[in-house]
Amino acid sequence: MEEKQTEISTLGEFGLIDRITRDFPLRNASSHKGVGDDAAVIGFGDKEALVTTDLLLEGIHFDLRYVPLRHLGYKAAVVNFSDIYAMNGCPRQITVSLGISSRFTVEHIEELYAGIRLACEQYGVDLVGGDTSASVTGLVISITCLGEADKDKIVYRDGARPTDLICVSGDLGAAYMGLQLLERENRVAVNSAPDFQPDFSGKEYLLERQLKPEARRDIIEALAENGIRPTSMMDVSDGLSSELLHICKSSGVGCRVYEDRIPIDYQTAIMAEEFNMNLVMTAMNGGEDYELLFTVPLADSEKIDRIKGVTMIGYITKPELGAAMVTRDGGEIEIRAQGWNAFTDATPAASAQTSEAEGSSSVEA
Amino acid sequence: MEEKQTEISTLGEFGLIDRITRDFPLRNASSHKGVGDDAAVIGFGDKEALVTTDLLLEGIHFDLRYVPLRHLGYKAAVVNFSDIYAMNGCPRQITVSLGISSRFTVEHIEELYAGIRLACEQYGVDLVGGDTSASVTGLVISITCLGEADKDKIVYRDGARPTDLICVSGDLGAAYMGLQLLERENRVAVNSAPDFQPDFSGKEYLLERQLKPEARRDIIEALAENGIRPTSMMDVSDGLSSELLHICKSSGVGCRVYEDRIPIDYQTAIMAEEFNMNLVMTAMNGGEDYELLFTVPLADSEKIDRIKGVTMIGYITKPELGAAMVTRDGGEIEIRAQGWNAFTDATPAASAQTSEAEGSSSVEA
Repeated sequence: MEEKQTEISTLGEFGLIDRITRDFPLRNASSHKGVGDDAAVIGFGDKEALVTTDLLLEGIHFDLRYVPLRHLGYKAAVVNFSDIYAMNGCPRQITVSLGISSRFTVEHIEELYAGIRLACEQYGVDLVGGDTSASVTGLVISITCLGEADKDKIVYRDGARPTDLICVSGDLGAAYMGLQLLERENRVAVNSAPDFQPDFSGKEYLLERQLKPEARRDIIEALAENGIRPTSMMDVSDGLSSELLHICKSSGVGCRVYEDRIPIDYQTAIMAEEFNMNLVMTAMNGGEDYELLFTVPLADSEKIDRIKGVTMIGYITKPELGAAMVTRDGGEIEIRAQGWNAFTDATPAASAQTSEAEGSSSVEA
Repeated sequence: MEEKQTEISTLGEFGLIDRITRDFPLRNASSHKGVGDDAAVIGFGDKEALVTTDLLLEGIHFDLRYVPLRHLGYKAAVVNFSDIYAMNGCPRQITVSLGISSRFTVEHIEELYAGIRLACEQYGVDLVGGDTSASVTGLVISITCLGEADKDKIVYRDGARPTDLICVSGDLGAAYMGLQLLERENRVAVNSAPDFQPDFSGKEYLLERQLKPEARRDIIEALAENGIRPTSMMDVSDGLSSELLHICKSSGVGCRVYEDRIPIDYQTAIMAEEFNMNLVMTAMNGGEDYELLFTVPLADSEKIDRIKGVTMIGYITKPELGAAMVTRDGGEIEIRAQGWNAFTDATPAASAQTSEAEGSSSVEA
């Protein structure tokens, strides 16, 4: 252990995952898909079980100064459901593990579980287990979700083919703007009278997208009703840029997305103006939207048109064309991953990486 | 949230779990068993999927001053496998989520994964997913394990019936003694020259039991070979007393275990002497043994005799007789839960609870 030591930030989250998981061959016949998609796929007879897991740490993934515990519980569950839907599956069970520091009371934990319970009710999911213990500092939430899917209906990240259409549900960037808004109001609150009440009127949508995101079960159902099986699919948790690159890498393809096709809500646009941020970059890199990004064969374009709330934003190309955004003036900007990287804030090396990315119009302030 | 606030320690871990999970009815037909056993049971056609999860927090569950990362990884995986075996199932897949503070390097994380990998190899389990992020302080490890079992072979906690024999594999208390030893040597090391080397000779077994526990796959196999299906089963993670009470409560029965039948290794006995601890109480309450505690019908007693490494320690009674240990002199001591409660160290209320328990010869120093 005294030999060479490498800062984790030099690899980044995905680099670290690649490195630590490469020596784990799959041995069991039932392990149909391991690391590298929204969920693992486990064979159980005719059905496939989907497994996804998420670890949320106070101070990294959430800030209890402006996130109510009930909302946190709801979101912590829903983001896992989203991963199962992103495989074209149906979430069925979750386990919830908590690490709880001494500043939390039973009532606090009940609030958190009230949110988890609401999410379970809304999505028809069962809480089936977990682990609860003390923590030295802060709140730790680890949720694992099991889902099921028919074997021939699961959609991975690696099936996108040139000429496929790239589609995205809902709109992008609002959750990120909601976070900016909460952080700003919190800074203001710190310097204000104790009875200060932030004014969020006209910005409710942004807050809701940040605090109470929904998983797009409706889109999965609409796709099925219209007889569409996407060739690849992911949920947008790290940001559209990052997810597009995942699909391109996994599928061995390139892509073109059109700047003027990126779906953005007007509240997001107004806030970007107010914060003096590049609107499209916010939508491309914001993260936490939990919309579905998927590709379909060109022949499905009319069917897609029929589904409300889905936008065709571009198409898949041969790999040698790379991944790029076509700007309004017809130029092309290379798409780079600038999504959430939990390691970037922590160290100088990672900051350098972020700075480099800023050269290509990053949304990072 | 400004209303009544209840310290978590007043409920304890199990009380908290009862309270927060009571409003979660199971909705899915595939959710065969939820909270309240070693693992959840999910129906997938003919087979059942077992799911268990474990959250390990630095400073609460492990101390990196004397636990090598490789051992920590091995143990973190194995304790989950143990939960699956305790259902009479076979572990197949794990997901591993990590929260990593900035003091850890890539090499550290590789050490941790080397241990996880070794455990996966030894037990034929696949790593299929996870989540990795930064943490503000310390290391967080959350592992979820999936296993499988035939529907008619799963063993729950609730099947023990009066006259059933109570059996336990291996020996008890050694892992707890190993921890005492490590903590003592660490205290000595702090006050010694930098080149201080602790002397663990003659105590290797205790260290191994603490640092590199094994899950008892061999016992599960031996039970199957001998045509024995336990009526109830658990793994001994919190301590024999605590687990016996779980089985009695779930099964609606009482029990008698014989002091002179509790299996204890001679190294454990020597260390208890050295630490001036009550040996049997150490074995009853030590925790982290990861042995299997199970009950079998009286008629299986000869078959059990044939299995090496299994000891019959007592029998199940009617509920009105309660749970008690029969001492060497023929007296009876009520069995109370004094197992690991991660909340007990943190707060005054919990300390009071511990003190009360001490009245009935607790092992807590």
